Amino acid sequence: MKRQESSIKIACIQMEPRVGQKADNVARSLALIEQAARNGANLIVLPELCNSGYVFESREEAFELAEPIPAGPTTKTWCEAAAKHSTYLVAGIAERDGASLYNAAVVIGPSGYLGTFRKVHLWNEENLYFELGNLGFPVFSTPIGRIGTFICYDGWFPESYRLCALQGADIVCIPTNWVPIPGQDPRREAMANILCMAAAHSNSLFVAAADRVGIERGQPFNGQSIIVSYTGWPIGGPASKDREEIIYAEANLADARRKRNWNEYNQVLRDRRTDVYGEMLGSEARPGWY
Amino acid sequence: MKRQESSIKIACIQMEPRVGQKADNVARSLALIEQAARNGANLIVLPELCNSGYVFESREEAFELAEPIPAGPTTKTWCEAAAKHSTYLVAGIAERDGASLYNAAVVIGPSGYLGTFRKVHLWNEENLYFELGNLGFPVFSTPIGRIGTFICYDGWFPESYRLCALQGADIVCIPTNWVPIPGQDPRREAMANILCMAAAHSNSLFVAAADRVGIERGQPFNGQSIIVSYTGWPIGGPASKDREEIIYAEANLADARRKRNWNEYNQVLRDRRTDVYGEMLGSEARPGWY
Repeated sequence: MKRQESSIKIACIQMEPRVGQKADNVARSLALIEQAARNGANLIVLPELCNSGYVFESREEAFELAEPIPAGPTTKTWCEAAAKHSTYLVAGIAERDGASLYNAAVVIGPSGYLGTFRKVHLWNEENLYFELGNLGFPVFSTPIGRIGTFICYDGWFPESYRLCALQGADIVCIPTNWVPIPGQDPRREAMANILCMAAAHSNSLFVAAADRVGIERGQPFNGQSIIVSYTGWPIGGPASKDREEIIYAEANLADARRKRNWNEYNQVLRDRRTDVYGEMLGSEARPGWY
Repeated sequence: MKRQESSIKIACIQMEPRVGQKADNVARSLALIEQAARNGANLIVLPELCNSGYVFESREEAFELAEPIPAGPTTKTWCEAAAKHSTYLVAGIAERDGASLYNAAVVIGPSGYLGTFRKVHLWNEENLYFELGNLGFPVFSTPIGRIGTFICYDGWFPESYRLCALQGADIVCIPTNWVPIPGQDPRREAMANILCMAAAHSNSLFVAAADRVGIERGQPFNGQSIIVSYTGWPIGGPASKDREEIIYAEANLADARRKRNWNEYNQVLRDRRTDVYGEMLGSEARPGWY
């Protein structure tokens, strides 16, 4: 008997958090999670810092909005929602750990909190507020598949995807707050989307990126949330640039792994020539003259 | 006085080599090199294995068509052309080194032979004929900029681009023989183009990929040669899927490096978190269970 695997339904919630209005943002996230779950989603991705907002005015403001994980109220609320709707959640959250702040993503299943990712590559003034992520790129094994996660600018580093893939991730869920990039062609998808597509293809894994919209303290955000197949081609979105919406895609996450043999000779992860790459890509940093 | 740098003109020659007809292929390459040079190109990229053709029927046939570098007749002829037209050439060639064959790219300047790249990641039945490339990812410093090069399937590995970038490459020249990929959307550019765009952007370097066209012993090729700016957006091509043609772009290669500071905090190559990547990406291979 051929084993019959079930597909899952992935949802990316594109929303507009308002900086500082945490109770409202979390309430809004709950309403959208419920809507996604009603539509059958069992893996739901929310944007970066979706409980706090993004453009902090001071370190004090960032501290005020951050919470411990998993003990803080936002994670607790999201755990209740995940249990109620029997779904997996990956959501961006401002984390406070003692005197340290992290731009974090929390991974939650129907049975509760699974783990945290802390953004490894900090963008722009995040460097004023957050510590560098120090939990690596954890991959979470779940009944629906192996879930990797990272945040926004981490996706500019192919290393982030590779580290997830090499640890067995079938999908990378990306809470993000993409900002406009100079030189963008308005007639086509964002460069951020192109990066998701290239990485999905060259690692043979699914990618689900949930972006925010709106303009916050003068900073515009991009929208264009996207769900990409292991082939590299979009299967959900890109979403609009400026509207709250939920995009969906059905996928059998096992395909990421099953279809990784491209012919009798090639499997893209096994074909890596670590003998040639040497130490330059990893812990042995090069002099920074580039 | 502000230093005035001159732009260069990059050309990718999209041509159709015929397997086994080496003299004709080289003659055709010379005619197209002359045409590109007449149009002002000073950096010209030719496809993978453009002197020999691609779909060998046997190891014997591949041996017969391969040549030593730089002593063989094809490299000698291309060196003469580069000198005559005062141009740089990067071209794919079947290399024979004693009893070993390599899928190679030769880099030539107006003053002669500069060096060789040997394809690191072999695709499909290339594994029957060629040895694995053993020269790493050399980057050639020239008066017009620092030139990295690799071939076709090497571009599926973000590591290839990174190793060029970390060694200071301003441009990666890619002789290629792209083949169709399942799931392609016929209304848009090839996934191979998407990979070039993502890598150009996330490494802040130029990419110039010269593909072949035609169907050889039943194997179709993709065309869609492309020249991409350090921003990630195309500045030449994509070319057609099935016609011989030359695409051009003017570029100041120094921009790749000058524009790499994206804001006060971020420079994409310096932002790499080698402390987090550890050894997994490099010489310390993971167990191959993925």
